[in-house]
Amino acid sequence: MYKNPIITLLSDFGLVDSYVAEMKAVILSINPSATLIDISHNIEPYNIRMGAYILARIVEYFPEKTIHLAVVDPGVGGPRKPIIVETLKALFVGPDNGLLMLAAEKLGVSHVYQIENRRYMLKEISKTFHGRDIFAPAAAYLSLGVPPKNFGKEVFDYVKPSYIKPKIFKNKIVGEIIHLDNFGNIITNITQKHLKTKNITYGKSFQIILGENKPLKVRFLESYFQALKGEIFALVGSGNFVEISENLGNAAKTLNVKTGTKITFIF
Amino acid sequence: MYKNPIITLLSDFGLVDSYVAEMKAVILSINPSATLIDISHNIEPYNIRMGAYILARIVEYFPEKTIHLAVVDPGVGGPRKPIIVETLKALFVGPDNGLLMLAAEKLGVSHVYQIENRRYMLKEISKTFHGRDIFAPAAAYLSLGVPPKNFGKEVFDYVKPSYIKPKIFKNKIVGEIIHLDNFGNIITNITQKHLKTKNITYGKSFQIILGENKPLKVRFLESYFQALKGEIFALVGSGNFVEISENLGNAAKTLNVKTGTKITFIF
Amino acid sequence: MYKNPIITLLSDFGLVDSYVAEMKAVILSINPSATLIDISHNIEPYNIRMGAYILARIVEYFPEKTIHLAVVDPGVGGPRKPIIVETLKALFVGPDNGLLMLAAEKLGVSHVYQIENRRYMLKEISKTFHGRDIFAPAAAYLSLGVPPKNFGKEVFDYVKPSYIKPKIFKNKIVGEIIHLDNFGNIITNITQKHLKTKNITYGKSFQIILGENKPLKVRFLESYFQALKGEIFALVGSGNFVEISENLGNAAKTLNVKTGTKITFIF
Repeated sequence: MYKNPIITLLSDFGLVDSYVAEMKAVILSINPSATLIDISHNIEPYNIRMGAYILARIVEYFPEKTIHLAVVDPGVGGPRKPIIVETLKALFVGPDNGLLMLAAEKLGVSHVYQIENRRYMLKEISKTFHGRDIFAPAAAYLSLGVPPKNFGKEVFDYVKPSYIKPKIFKNKIVGEIIHLDNFGNIITNITQKHLKTKNITYGKSFQIILGENKPLKVRFLESYFQALKGEIFALVGSGNFVEISENLGNAAKTLNVKTGTKITFIF
Repeated sequence: MYKNPIITLLSDFGLVDSYVAEMKAVILSINPSATLIDISHNIEPYNIRMGAYILARIVEYFPEKTIHLAVVDPGVGGPRKPIIVETLKALFVGPDNGLLMLAAEKLGVSHVYQIENRRYMLKEISKTFHGRDIFAPAAAYLSLGVPPKNFGKEVFDYVKPSYIKPKIFKNKIVGEIIHLDNFGNIITNITQKHLKTKNITYGKSFQIILGENKPLKVRFLESYFQALKGEIFALVGSGNFVEISENLGNAAKTLNVKTGTKITFIF
Repeated sequence: MYKNPIITLLSDFGLVDSYVAEMKAVILSINPSATLIDISHNIEPYNIRMGAYILARIVEYFPEKTIHLAVVDPGVGGPRKPIIVETLKALFVGPDNGLLMLAAEKLGVSHVYQIENRRYMLKEISKTFHGRDIFAPAAAYLSLGVPPKNFGKEVFDYVKPSYIKPKIFKNKIVGEIIHLDNFGNIITNITQKHLKTKNITYGKSFQIILGENKPLKVRFLESYFQALKGEIFALVGSGNFVEISENLGNAAKTLNVKTGTKITFIF
């Protein structure tokens, strides 16, 4: 049905084991013409929020009708439902634990269906690896044009993502660190819109308090290039969140912080 | 000859260097329509048994006529033969050191051929990288339909995998750890069949002795979900081996064990 | 225009974040039939020389008309130009900081063009991620057959790679370590040609001084196989540079050296 169906894969399976390849093998056995693109398989084990953040970053860049297969699934084998999420632009396949919904809500959720039709699963279903036995075949059959509603009944009480919004006060914003990237950029849940409400424009400075660190004055800059070598500063990252960065360094290491740490901006 | 030939790649080359990409470049230069799927390139350097275990897990999930290219090759440049293994379902290409045979025996070995025909190698052959110069071209020519027998003479004295079977006693089974996965699951060489002979069914408990740890009573459960948070328990993993797991934790770290460690189940 | 266009990707983005997938999504949105091959995304952050070395290794193995997209870009958002490098065999896309030129010079540089035509960029261009917003679309449009000169004006003062040549003395050669690979092989910038000028042929020995280590006598061998287990020796690696290796061990760990360390060969 699709001429060049793209199936993306995201998981916490890592790149040592064969788990990712087993999912790809299942997909290609059902639809040999699928194009498989890895998003990341280095999500921290069981870290649904990290998976949700990474998945939400990428969906706008993929072509229409892309199928996103995502598996961070600590509840595998338990009562959590396997689901398909239909949006106008893309389809999502994975566990009903919030992982898919941050991304899906960005695109606008049309329908959510439970995957229960055994016809679209592997014959033997393990209790520990639904990525291979249920989710991969579902993604492959979707890429062949099987309509989402054929997989099972519609679900209305799906799990919403536990996404924390920053708290806005008169002279400060209290947010948290949602991700530390490969360059040590500290990505917060605070956006440029939040800074605008506090009249922070490029070139201005404000104070940040990060975990146990003492308050630090940072400039708000437009690019890494504008910072001095080794300077710690704030900028808007490519995912539209405010990041704390160290020019040509690793801010996360220098400031010794972790995902989930509280961050306060004081104006 | 094949319409959508799949070539899988497994190695101990890691994902920092360009070695994997050099093999892929060689394959695509010979057969631009090959579909390349990575199994794992993070096999421990020189660890043939780990490579053999990972390769054996995946073969049943790939479509017929898949070509598996695997290179964990501490003997490169020495007398070990480069070989092609023909099975009913798939072809294997790699060094004759046991790496391919655990997987190939699962599918049923038909013939083993030595790769000696220079026509199907790169013009210049290094002494240190047969993955690029001999194995990758062989896989590519196989995917074009060149019959395995055209590569060289049949080999009958190929290296068998050094796979250790568990020892069964009246009240215990002595096995060993064959792999620690990304979640810290401790994968043993003991299977569900072994447990059945000792009347261990889901819900029952038994004792394990793992390396230097004191004996530990574990429940045999059907899924991660049935365990309490932090409980260490036994289950049958998706590769059909008995695994020792920690629910939402990392059993390998908690119990501080390594691949190759002896494990005893006491009933 | 190309039937099976290959686009390779090299970066310092790592394999945890979604940055690589965002570039691939942009490419496939513009040219769904591109074949995407990862070279390495584990270049050390900001390490242009390491990226240049890895890229230069692989170009000869890819088919003609391959497009190499490489992004190690500490100057993103600053005045450094985005460029396309045209050679007879391949095209390169990336920042004008030397990253592309070691590889491009191997193939023979025809023309270098600045990427400035907004038509071939994403609509919104971040200040921090030109890999996604400028370089990926450029590679995709090149793969559709857009001529390099359509992207912008020719550049003549492009940045040359800062590649260090070894110094040759009467009884010694002073070089440096350019890379440590996955097996701990210590790759130097000294080639077999240099050794020939000193009458070093296989089987002969010479002394090396590596960083703070005391002088070490090593044999010059043709393959790993010829060395004794644990022997530290010299050989010509698959990239044609002299490497210091430890048979079935990790020479880089044993000798505790880093990239950039001076190495002296004494004859």
